[in-house]
Amino acid sequence: MTSFTLADLEKIVAVRAAADPAESWTAKLAAAGMPKAAKKLGEEAVETVIAATSQGRGELVGESADLLYHLLVVLRIGNIPLNEVMAELQRRTAQSGLAEKAGRPVE
Amino acid sequence: MTSFTLADLEKIVAVRAAADPAESWTAKLAAAGMPKAAKKLGEEAVETVIAATSQGRGELVGESADLLYHLLVVLRIGNIPLNEVMAELQRRTAQSGLAEKAGRPVE
Amino acid sequence: MTSFTLADLEKIVAVRAAADPAESWTAKLAAAGMPKAAKKLGEEAVETVIAATSQGRGELVGESADLLYHLLVVLRIGNIPLNEVMAELQRRTAQSGLAEKAGRPVE
Amino acid sequence: MTSFTLADLEKIVAVRAAADPAESWTAKLAAAGMPKAAKKLGEEAVETVIAATSQGRGELVGESADLLYHLLVVLRIGNIPLNEVMAELQRRTAQSGLAEKAGRPVE
Repeated sequence: MTSFTLADLEKIVAVRAAADPAESWTAKLAAAGMPKAAKKLGEEAVETVIAATSQGRGELVGESADLLYHLLVVLRIGNIPLNEVMAELQRRTAQSGLAEKAGRPVE
Repeated sequence: MTSFTLADLEKIVAVRAAADPAESWTAKLAAAGMPKAAKKLGEEAVETVIAATSQGRGELVGESADLLYHLLVVLRIGNIPLNEVMAELQRRTAQSGLAEKAGRPVE
Repeated sequence: MTSFTLADLEKIVAVRAAADPAESWTAKLAAAGMPKAAKKLGEEAVETVIAATSQGRGELVGESADLLYHLLVVLRIGNIPLNEVMAELQRRTAQSGLAEKAGRPVE
Repeated sequence: MTSFTLADLEKIVAVRAAADPAESWTAKLAAAGMPKAAKKLGEEAVETVIAATSQGRGELVGESADLLYHLLVVLRIGNIPLNEVMAELQRRTAQSGLAEKAGRPVE
């Protein structure tokens, strides 16, 4: 049972993004800019979708980890603290389960 | 500054996924099964990519929140505790910055 | 064996995109603008990926059809004639098979 | 004005997919199998979405070309003749513009 959190990962991404691009892949990606980082996020999402629908549990764990990592890189480049996203999630989920868009079709 | 964490969100998703599909959109999505939930995850990723490359800060916060929510729904359906993904992230990021795939081209 | 081509589809998309948005879903999508149309393209791609990796032949045919349709809507909004894309494909594929990026890793 | 068609491209993809993987990138991708080819299709779709929403006309032409190429590789691996997809598109678009899901919301 790890105590490692997304906030811990955010700190690691911040340190790496600020490193020398010659020594850190994350710094290299951050230096490449948002279009490249967003593209990588999209690619990891595609891999997560494939893992979820046609591969095993281990693949889904690994691809989900990659997806979270690249989301934090995108947020870093966008100067958005993870805390802002979490506050938005808290706000949205504060409504009751009944109010939770029950009428909205899944489609 | 919220103290709301991804682990808190995981608990909310678990409660909702176990609710009556007639009263919870999350339960409806969980009942629809993995292909539908994975599709939704992919859609949210596309929206996050668009927000990151061509929209404003508010859109990126909102789409990132949606992406995280739908990733947790996929993990729930896959019976994967978030903790397993976090442990994988901890394992991967435990390497030094120098070792961090510095040689790998960004693309 | 149909003689229906992508150029035929392009003409249909053009007619529909120019119709009254109240009477044509394509016109409605074209009126909504590029971010919305690009989002739909991305969604259809996700569904094509899921069909290709975990569903049947019929699903892959149907999702590929949707993907082509939405690509033509995006090109229409971008004022790009299909012919320009086909000319680019002809140019790229004119090289010999040997030259065809044989050395590039699939990854 | 090129006369190059998607059916021409399908023939080129077929020849390349049957070549020696050591000499053709397409053969290498076909040999890698559907998950890898579907992943590439998804990546090209993400790049097309980014080009459509935040880049220039030239990028959208180039990414659309890539997307079509990789869709044909996926169809080849799935043993689906392009003609089947075109027949499906013909069938779907044979309905009148009015009938064309006019009532369906773009969202």
